[in-house]
Order: sequence, then structure tokens, then C-alpha cells
Amino acid sequence: MNGPELTHAISLVSRLPGLGPRSARRLVLHLLKRRQETLKPLMQALFDMEQKVKTCTQCYSLDTVTPCTLCTDERRDSASLCVVADVADVWALERAQTYKGRYHVLGGVLSAIDGVMPNQLTLDPLIRRIMDGGINEVILALNATVEGQTTLHYIADLLHPYGVKISTLAHGVPVGGELDYLDDGTLHTAFKARRILEAA
Amino acid sequence: MNGPELTHAISLVSRLPGLGPRSARRLVLHLLKRRQETLKPLMQALFDMEQKVKTCTQCYSLDTVTPCTLCTDERRDSASLCVVADVADVWALERAQTYKGRYHVLGGVLSAIDGVMPNQLTLDPLIRRIMDGGINEVILALNATVEGQTTLHYIADLLHPYGVKISTLAHGVPVGGELDYLDDGTLHTAFKARRILEAA
Repeated sequence: MNGPELTHAISLVSRLPGLGPRSARRLVLHLLKRRQETLKPLMQALFDMEQKVKTCTQCYSLDTVTPCTLCTDERRDSASLCVVADVADVWALERAQTYKGRYHVLGGVLSAIDGVMPNQLTLDPLIRRIMDGGINEVILALNATVEGQTTLHYIADLLHPYGVKISTLAHGVPVGGELDYLDDGTLHTAFKARRILEAA
Repeated sequence: MNGPELTHAISLVSRLPGLGPRSARRLVLHLLKRRQETLKPLMQALFDMEQKVKTCTQCYSLDTVTPCTLCTDERRDSASLCVVADVADVWALERAQTYKGRYHVLGGVLSAIDGVMPNQLTLDPLIRRIMDGGINEVILALNATVEGQTTLHYIADLLHPYGVKISTLAHGVPVGGELDYLDDGTLHTAFKARRILEAA
């Protein structure tokens, strides 16, 4: 009804995360109606991104230079290494502007269901970075899911012989969270990890 | 933190309809992680679409040929013309597989708020098509919104001198709809337009 090119484009867009057939049709029509302002810049941006963005050979994050700007930034603390599952986690931590050390992106978490085995993660490079020395603390910043926590304990066991300090993110009530809406697991953990308030 | 190309691509994607900063980051990461399977085919599809899809000179819908396949399909009834606001409406009606005539895409609806005036719609070409003859019925299939209905009445007045039959879609209870969840306006219209059931 409207040519194979259009149908094909809609079909590809509809398979992207967060989109379905209806939103894909809407998106493609939006692009076609404003070719100069939306479609052409987007095509150029995707092309530039495809050409220039690469995986950092050191931390496995994405950047246009390798080693990436986070790995080469002299102001960041090289003695601290934050292990995350995905590039999106690096971005999330950078947005929080709280951590000023180096990163190491695993490229996923161990998962029996999805068939992700230890050799599919960047664990060998991680061990090599620790053996190279200069790292005092490894922060395992993984999702508080079953897979994330399984991976966390696997890596903690793996790194134990190398004598570095290993830490993990605190569990507890999210900032702005209401107790009434929290799940039992979080409440239980937050209660057990309660801290004594210092007298003013 | 990750190069201007990546930031720019995320920014462009986040401005597309239905997407925001978070879903744009997720989408771009998805594309970068699976370049061969997702990013490259998508770039090619957008390029092909940009090159080949054009506006039909007759009905103003989109297709890779002009006049479009709907305008040239001999099996469709040339005596019936369905006027819609947008290409998306042509696609919606085609999916419903109920209408087998020609279309005319207005390119929008009259709107005082958005500043859409009659001369921005394809009304002159519509009148020309009707003056060319051969059209018995014009179906005004516009959204049941204030703008849609304003446009509908404007076009009905405009076409009145040409002596063609002008019709519009029925209002009523949507198929599968529950009365309890319907707005008063729809219930009122459906009640007033009730039809007598024929005895079996």
C-alpha cells in the first residue's frame, strides 16, 4: 500500500526497545513530514555515531576516543575502580556526579536463563587491570536483581585472592521514597542496616 | 563524557515523538551494541526511505510511486473519495480493510491554536478533483475532536455548491467498548442515533 521501503523502515523501527508498530508508524511519519529538520539530521547523526563511537580498550565503555575520556582524565582517582554491568550504568553514575574514579564495564550480568557465562563478560581484562596494580578499591555497582547480585558475589569471590578492598552499593530506602510503597525486602534491608544518628 | 557524536545522536532521538532522554539513551545504546544487526540496517532503511518515498501528486499520501498505488489501483472505486487529515489515517483505514475507494489527504486540520489556516490544507486540489468529475460521494473521515469537526463543517460548506453527496463517519459506542467507561458525549450521540433492530 505504500512501498516496501516504507514498510521495511517501519518494521525495523518497531523492533527497537520501547517502540511498537503504532509508535513506529508515528515516528516514521514524523520523520517523513519533516525531512530537512528531522530525518536528514538523524541520518547524519547515526552515520557519525556509527563511524566514530568505539568501545574503550581499557574500561569497555563507549566513546569517540580510546582509551576513553573517563580513563584518561587525570583528575579522576586511578586507585578506585567501579565495576558496572552496562555502559548505561556508567552514564547513570556520571549523571549523579558522585563518583570520581575509573570504571570497568562487564558487558552484562551472569544469567542462566539468558545463557550468559563468565567468559562472555570482561572478567579477564578486569583481573589484568587489578594485577597491574595501583587499585585500592573495587566497587561492585551492579543492579539489585537476582542476576546482578549473583554476578556481584561471583566477582567478589574471583577478586578475593588479589587482596583489594571490595565494596558494593548500600541497599535501603530510595531518597524521596515512601515506606508504605516499599517492598518487604527493601524495608527489611534498610531496617537491618539502620545507622545511629550522632547527637548534634 | 562520551563524545559529541553520541550526545548529539541521543539528543536528536530524544526529540522524536514518544521518546524522551531515558528511552533515547536506551535506544542508542541498543543500536551501538548491535551495529551489524540493528544500526546498519536502520541507517540503510532510513536512507532508502528518504530517497524513494514521496508525496502522491494526486491524493497527497506517501508512496514510492506517484500517483500512488491507491490512486492507480483499478479495483478501487474512483467515484468515492475519502477525505482524511493525515497519512496515518489512510493507513488506519487501509488496515480496517473496509473502504475501497480513493483518498485525499488534507495535511492537517484547521486550528486557531496552532495557526493552521484553510490555505495550508490541500483544499484547492480537493475542489479540482471534484470539478474534474466522476466523484459521487465525498466521505469526510476526520477525527471526532473540536478541530476535526470544525474542519469537517468547513469542508462540507465549501463542497456544497458542487452537488456531490457528502457523508461523515458514524459516532457511537466503539466495538468492544463498555458503556460504563464511555464519556457522556459519546453515550448521548449513540443514544440519539440508535437504530431499530429488524425482526429476524
